[in-house]
Amino acid sequence: MQSQGISGTGEERSLVLEELGKLSLRPFPLDEQVGPHDVRIAIHTVGICGSDVHYYTHGAIGNFVVREPMILGHEASGTVTEVGSGVTNLSVGDRVCMEPGIPDPISRASRIGHYNLDPAVRFWATPPIHGVLRASVVHPAAYTFKLPDNVSFAAGAMVEPLAVGVQAATQAKVKPGDIAVVIGAGPIGLVTVLAALAAGCARVIVSDVDPVKLNMARSLGPVETVNVREQNLAEQVLNSTAGWGADVIFECSGAEAAITRVFEPLRPAGTVVFVGMPTKLVAYDVVAAQIREARVEHVFRYANVFGRCVDMLASGAIDVAPLITRTFDFEDSIKAFDLAASAPAGEVKMQIIMPGG
Amino acid sequence: MQSQGISGTGEERSLVLEELGKLSLRPFPLDEQVGPHDVRIAIHTVGICGSDVHYYTHGAIGNFVVREPMILGHEASGTVTEVGSGVTNLSVGDRVCMEPGIPDPISRASRIGHYNLDPAVRFWATPPIHGVLRASVVHPAAYTFKLPDNVSFAAGAMVEPLAVGVQAATQAKVKPGDIAVVIGAGPIGLVTVLAALAAGCARVIVSDVDPVKLNMARSLGPVETVNVREQNLAEQVLNSTAGWGADVIFECSGAEAAITRVFEPLRPAGTVVFVGMPTKLVAYDVVAAQIREARVEHVFRYANVFGRCVDMLASGAIDVAPLITRTFDFEDSIKAFDLAASAPAGEVKMQIIMPGG
Amino acid sequence: MQSQGISGTGEERSLVLEELGKLSLRPFPLDEQVGPHDVRIAIHTVGICGSDVHYYTHGAIGNFVVREPMILGHEASGTVTEVGSGVTNLSVGDRVCMEPGIPDPISRASRIGHYNLDPAVRFWATPPIHGVLRASVVHPAAYTFKLPDNVSFAAGAMVEPLAVGVQAATQAKVKPGDIAVVIGAGPIGLVTVLAALAAGCARVIVSDVDPVKLNMARSLGPVETVNVREQNLAEQVLNSTAGWGADVIFECSGAEAAITRVFEPLRPAGTVVFVGMPTKLVAYDVVAAQIREARVEHVFRYANVFGRCVDMLASGAIDVAPLITRTFDFEDSIKAFDLAASAPAGEVKMQIIMPGG
Amino acid sequence: MQSQGISGTGEERSLVLEELGKLSLRPFPLDEQVGPHDVRIAIHTVGICGSDVHYYTHGAIGNFVVREPMILGHEASGTVTEVGSGVTNLSVGDRVCMEPGIPDPISRASRIGHYNLDPAVRFWATPPIHGVLRASVVHPAAYTFKLPDNVSFAAGAMVEPLAVGVQAATQAKVKPGDIAVVIGAGPIGLVTVLAALAAGCARVIVSDVDPVKLNMARSLGPVETVNVREQNLAEQVLNSTAGWGADVIFECSGAEAAITRVFEPLRPAGTVVFVGMPTKLVAYDVVAAQIREARVEHVFRYANVFGRCVDMLASGAIDVAPLITRTFDFEDSIKAFDLAASAPAGEVKMQIIMPGG
Repeated sequence: MQSQGISGTGEERSLVLEELGKLSLRPFPLDEQVGPHDVRIAIHTVGICGSDVHYYTHGAIGNFVVREPMILGHEASGTVTEVGSGVTNLSVGDRVCMEPGIPDPISRASRIGHYNLDPAVRFWATPPIHGVLRASVVHPAAYTFKLPDNVSFAAGAMVEPLAVGVQAATQAKVKPGDIAVVIGAGPIGLVTVLAALAAGCARVIVSDVDPVKLNMARSLGPVETVNVREQNLAEQVLNSTAGWGADVIFECSGAEAAITRVFEPLRPAGTVVFVGMPTKLVAYDVVAAQIREARVEHVFRYANVFGRCVDMLASGAIDVAPLITRTFDFEDSIKAFDLAASAPAGEVKMQIIMPGG
Repeated sequence: MQSQGISGTGEERSLVLEELGKLSLRPFPLDEQVGPHDVRIAIHTVGICGSDVHYYTHGAIGNFVVREPMILGHEASGTVTEVGSGVTNLSVGDRVCMEPGIPDPISRASRIGHYNLDPAVRFWATPPIHGVLRASVVHPAAYTFKLPDNVSFAAGAMVEPLAVGVQAATQAKVKPGDIAVVIGAGPIGLVTVLAALAAGCARVIVSDVDPVKLNMARSLGPVETVNVREQNLAEQVLNSTAGWGADVIFECSGAEAAITRVFEPLRPAGTVVFVGMPTKLVAYDVVAAQIREARVEHVFRYANVFGRCVDMLASGAIDVAPLITRTFDFEDSIKAFDLAASAPAGEVKMQIIMPGG
Repeated sequence: MQSQGISGTGEERSLVLEELGKLSLRPFPLDEQVGPHDVRIAIHTVGICGSDVHYYTHGAIGNFVVREPMILGHEASGTVTEVGSGVTNLSVGDRVCMEPGIPDPISRASRIGHYNLDPAVRFWATPPIHGVLRASVVHPAAYTFKLPDNVSFAAGAMVEPLAVGVQAATQAKVKPGDIAVVIGAGPIGLVTVLAALAAGCARVIVSDVDPVKLNMARSLGPVETVNVREQNLAEQVLNSTAGWGADVIFECSGAEAAITRVFEPLRPAGTVVFVGMPTKLVAYDVVAAQIREARVEHVFRYANVFGRCVDMLASGAIDVAPLITRTFDFEDSIKAFDLAASAPAGEVKMQIIMPGG
Repeated sequence: MQSQGISGTGEERSLVLEELGKLSLRPFPLDEQVGPHDVRIAIHTVGICGSDVHYYTHGAIGNFVVREPMILGHEASGTVTEVGSGVTNLSVGDRVCMEPGIPDPISRASRIGHYNLDPAVRFWATPPIHGVLRASVVHPAAYTFKLPDNVSFAAGAMVEPLAVGVQAATQAKVKPGDIAVVIGAGPIGLVTVLAALAAGCARVIVSDVDPVKLNMARSLGPVETVNVREQNLAEQVLNSTAGWGADVIFECSGAEAAITRVFEPLRPAGTVVFVGMPTKLVAYDVVAAQIREARVEHVFRYANVFGRCVDMLASGAIDVAPLITRTFDFEDSIKAFDLAASAPAGEVKMQIIMPGG
């Protein structure tokens, strides 16, 4: 992966994925008007997500193919600079974070409360929709969330990935005192650990093959870890639960080997949540699920959890600071993406600070 | 599969699976005492289940291996002939049906209401526990259910397979007006059709490859059918639901081809229930489930539904009579099993009437 | 209540509540434009609801006061005569029924799928929003539902009251084989009986003081009745359920005497649904609810159930025909309202057929 | 209330409620045999509950009347000294806490997992069942829970009251990020605050009339308080939630004034849990609940939560230490009860340490 020279000038510059493997910092004017229910937000902080990097390195995710230059970035916080005539929940100057998917509010999926499943949703930095590594964006006020004073822009830009973990914990219907397993200690696994603990789990058992990631996991609270290169996950979980099994298992690795055996550590009538996305069909053990009458939930982004995440950050119920491992100036964005593409050990979340931020 | 000569004499004879492929009708004395919470039941009618036949033809199901002669039969109705000192809900002369699994009531699974998931459950005609193709059985009163006058012994002996369908519909959490798909129109698929309709589905779309079975399915109520040899199930379901998809899909075939594509006809936030048990790992499409945030439930027998089934039979909410396609005298049991082992077209449920029944 | 003279001429006439106690049939031009997501519907059939009658006889319901002349009617079916540019689910000529409440789709309540709880909802024939006893109405396509050929206009106009019962049964989370109690056999009680049976109840026990209503209830399916002038409801329910109690109790009377004792016939961990609206605070027995750990749900109109109702009418899962006890020509609407205001014995639902219908 | 002289001698002495208002410390031999599924426990610590005090000061709670001398105490921890032949989960020397209600495991309520609702449950210190302010007790192993090394006897004896709060939070189905209200800051209110926070609430708003109790509440985590002598609860909650309302309201006061207005601070589709037990019928606002489609849950003790509480204490998810405000030697038990009966300001939980503890 070769990094590209910086082009363009001025504060209106954006981080543009010109095509597979080619990034530019250049002016990219977008004529966005503030409608009656919209706000305009000056972007402050943008986190780098694995999907941004994947578009850079592969040019596509599934059926979503980068065919035109596209601005990257969808984990963002900023400051409201303009509000539409019908907006009542926000004012100029409010510090905010934004939910990056904009659904059709009258679609059938939206009407039943699952707007994230509306096939017509427009999601930042998913072709052909532009992301927000740029000076400003116009966004519906309904999907823009005010940050209290004690939630930083950095934490605000963590709400998007955190929301995936909170969606997973919500779908799991965690009960107070549950014992959870999180398989995979990458960024999504780690926000799922935070969400599972906040959602009522007494403790979490995290598995991975990387000791550095497992160390990070242990720092987040009452967390035990299992390095599955050395230990059998099901055995460890059964040992740790008097032979009963875990109440909830969050599969965040997307790895077939994990998925095939995902029911082994599960208690009778327990729950499995598939958060990680495998890249192909996986071997699944129906009978192992049946003898436990497992409930299996599948997570796709999130709906109605951004405000909840902000509230948990504000109260201290969740602290995302340990996951933000490096920060870059916007001028160094391409360097940041190249580093991210190298999968550096010890990094969880890297963020970019926009000019003036 | 060769049938075996009838041995033994007298009314106490039982249908004994001596070993793989060898059945006998012979005396098989069991010394069962009626404890304070038990009743003794004179058996009247016993249905033949695929699992009974499988033990006959294969000698084992999974880890359950027939190592000693075992009496077959677990779908039964009869008449109470003796009641324990502590029994208050039953009297001598009551016509009853019986739940064939006896759990440990103080196990951890039982304490949370999922007694069917107690690994220590003792289940009729599952090695080494004897079944009930015999004159009488002693059974806990708590798992014995009185049949009202308008529920026949034949219908009573159908409660066991029906309970699987009702468990599936219960786990599905069917909402009134749901549109369901049932994949596979064998006996379990058909009781699931009955249960899904009774549970609130507006209509059911049934798929199979056998036109005879699909005809039977259509006779059960507002049922459309799809012969998947000729038509694509997902296309037909989407056509039938204005492109939205089915609310619930009951997978009753256990076939990998069906399981791999089970999410295609499902609506956003819909539910899949795995009722059929595949014989091996199957290819599963996690991403197809995720983009719909599918909930997947897995069914293992049933818990707390026998009384519900009796109530629905009594009120006419469910009619199982069309599924009872043939009846044999106990003397002809081996013939009945040999016929069942041949998978005869057009048969759904065959039942055996005990002497004096 | 004195009926008022008919004024106005022409087919554009509407049934106008001029003020408390004064109805007119007269032209009432409304300038409604078809927006991109709207359709125009020629009204065919309109049912008379107790709330319409209450505005006529009392001029108000709670805080909703008739201050300007208002067209009545909100239970309607008709035919699409014009479709907006963005409408894809409907065509001119489609026979339809309509959900009378129009929410703000981006309100917080709508975003979580409970659009019926949006305080900003505009609901037909609820001041100051006009109803549909008129030639035509413009309505959002998202809240307009196509009727299959085998669902009549009369049945289509019954979807609105039926939806209340289906909402109640949905909130109850009826399980297959539940035994329900419906307290109160007025129109809402009776649609709740239909919904409860369709939703999976094995049978329903209905209580009222009026033998005529109880007769009607018994005609709807496996229904037992209790005349609470003569019998104790709790005793009868406990007798009918071997002392266990009912799984679900739908309180449709709004009567304090019923509400105070509503938990007595309830089984442990059972559910009560408050459908009827009392006119004042009522005495409630917290401890009776606690020792059963009762779940109590409260119903307000409905959300996401109109399409389900149409599907159940189409499949025959529900038949509303027995509840439509009288039909009037539009020219006789005022007579119809005067009759309705007299609470005539034996009438359940009266409907008005619009000119040309 | 006059305290009674200490009678009896020896280490086998028990705290006996001889009759209303009369306590004795005296030998009270009980001949309890260890059955195959039982353990014998040497009692170490016993908390004083309001119900113990109420039997002392009133001689009865509802229908439960003290007619014979009865040993008090049901919040207990201790050490296993003997195990039955069939016990596998406990060993001599294990430090444990005990669930004080012993249900019939084959009752209908137990079979559906709600053993706490079994009318036949025998509950410590509820006439005519003896409590555990005595040297030892025999108890079913299934309701005896091992304490890890880092959970003290004092914390173990807090599991019983904590379990009520955890049951409430479990019934509430708290979602991560919920904002809860707890009405009433007595001992049950405070354990409910702890449980609500542990169960995923971002923060809790607590109301009471006593500033000392509200101070204690604020010390427990992200808690705001409202003194309802000075402020309107609904106004404060709506202010604190941008006008939306609280997701969950735990009513722990049992006070009619609070119950009548309990829905005012609730968001659309929110949940109310009645934990406090009023002493009479209360005025209830059905319509206020309906326009929000409130779900109301009612709590009666707990089921299947003791192990969860122990796990949360062990992991630090919940810390009950701040609630244990005073400790007495067993010899001072009567003094302790007399103090408790005086409702001393600033005391939450008082505990008694048994001889040798």
